[in-house]
Amino acid sequence: MRPRFYVPQVDERAERVDLPDDEAEHLVRVLRLGVGDEVDVFDGRGGMWRAAIVDANKKAAAIRPLERLTAARELGVHVTLVMSVLKGDKMDDVVRDAVMLGVAAIHPVVSERAETSMAALARGNRIARWERIAVSSAKQCARAVVPAVHHATPLDWYWNEKTDATRLLCVEPSAALGEVRWVRQVAKPKAVHLIVGPEGGWSVTEVAAGHSSGAILMTLGSRTLRADAVPIVGLTALLTTWGELS
Amino acid sequence: MRPRFYVPQVDERAERVDLPDDEAEHLVRVLRLGVGDEVDVFDGRGGMWRAAIVDANKKAAAIRPLERLTAARELGVHVTLVMSVLKGDKMDDVVRDAVMLGVAAIHPVVSERAETSMAALARGNRIARWERIAVSSAKQCARAVVPAVHHATPLDWYWNEKTDATRLLCVEPSAALGEVRWVRQVAKPKAVHLIVGPEGGWSVTEVAAGHSSGAILMTLGSRTLRADAVPIVGLTALLTTWGELS
Repeated sequence: MRPRFYVPQVDERAERVDLPDDEAEHLVRVLRLGVGDEVDVFDGRGGMWRAAIVDANKKAAAIRPLERLTAARELGVHVTLVMSVLKGDKMDDVVRDAVMLGVAAIHPVVSERAETSMAALARGNRIARWERIAVSSAKQCARAVVPAVHHATPLDWYWNEKTDATRLLCVEPSAALGEVRWVRQVAKPKAVHLIVGPEGGWSVTEVAAGHSSGAILMTLGSRTLRADAVPIVGLTALLTTWGELS
Repeated sequence: MRPRFYVPQVDERAERVDLPDDEAEHLVRVLRLGVGDEVDVFDGRGGMWRAAIVDANKKAAAIRPLERLTAARELGVHVTLVMSVLKGDKMDDVVRDAVMLGVAAIHPVVSERAETSMAALARGNRIARWERIAVSSAKQCARAVVPAVHHATPLDWYWNEKTDATRLLCVEPSAALGEVRWVRQVAKPKAVHLIVGPEGGWSVTEVAAGHSSGAILMTLGSRTLRADAVPIVGLTALLTTWGELS
């Protein structure tokens, strides 16, 4: 398999396309590739090409696209994972797994019991970190699409955003403030937001706000799962139900 | 919710049942409970009782069962996770998540590309560690059954064991040495072994050995997943397919 590089600005008719600095460094210093070697490049929006290296030195690397490739199929449902930020580096694994399972976007939110704040997120440059993880995860699983990592917002701002997507709020079966559906009772929509809480779960107010914003309350069952396992279990269960785990 | 303790030798007619040392210590030192307080105890084989503390001191703690409780429902399929040992402490999370998803047993195996050996596993007391994790995970998710953690064996020993369970060997879609089935094509058996490989995957010889031992080759799709995410995705996909994620 040819090594893969993320080159957002590929122009397939160009004679020379420069790689972003970190990708160039990876090509030259880590993989020690040189002029004439072939690689795959993808633009993060679904385009992927076989390409030849036309320049490779300590300061830059450039390629020339040779042939458009068929990228891995994307999911038939546009899935956004709306995830209340978890403690420490647990979000890193969540982002990585969600990208590998095929989400189109990740929207970090700060809810009442999230053990972080908007200020702490900004100080820690967490969004930039998750964007890098999304790129490397897309590379690793051969997706030509790099999912967007949205700016983090407080959960109540999220409820105020307009969307045509079906909102699925993951709750405990006991958390009922309205009808709670099992995963297998959720029909396949065109676009979905899977909304997952932090270690301490949602407050009653938050479930009520979600419910009155039109979110479907959905449960993955009565067993307690680790907070960082919920998104992967939820995504897998939905994709299996919808025949999209492929 | 009453605190829960694992007491393998509960006799429900006894006036006094002593707790194992570590559970007693947890009761006395960490939770600071005393005589007369009520707790739940479970025997790890499906029995669970409300109980009163009848003794609690620095050296021991004992309870008297008061009333048998209805434990959380176990899965309708007897699932064994046969897992090639992963690097470092990644198996810890795998054991924890598998218990939470309801497996009945975990069988660690050492395959060709597992980055450990039978000797290293024994030196590290890993099985005892995973047993403790299985207990604490069962506690946390309110299961009254503690899944067995089998002694680790080389993979080829495992193939030689007789079993009535359906063996499902997780493979890449491309690894075909026989028909590869998608998760949704696997009918619900009474008992199943889900067999998951290490970071580097199976060797061709291993897939061939599994196939000729009657294992069904099963794929979770064409995307690359982290090795420690495969068991959780595989279990979730199977349980969803079989209507057992509840």
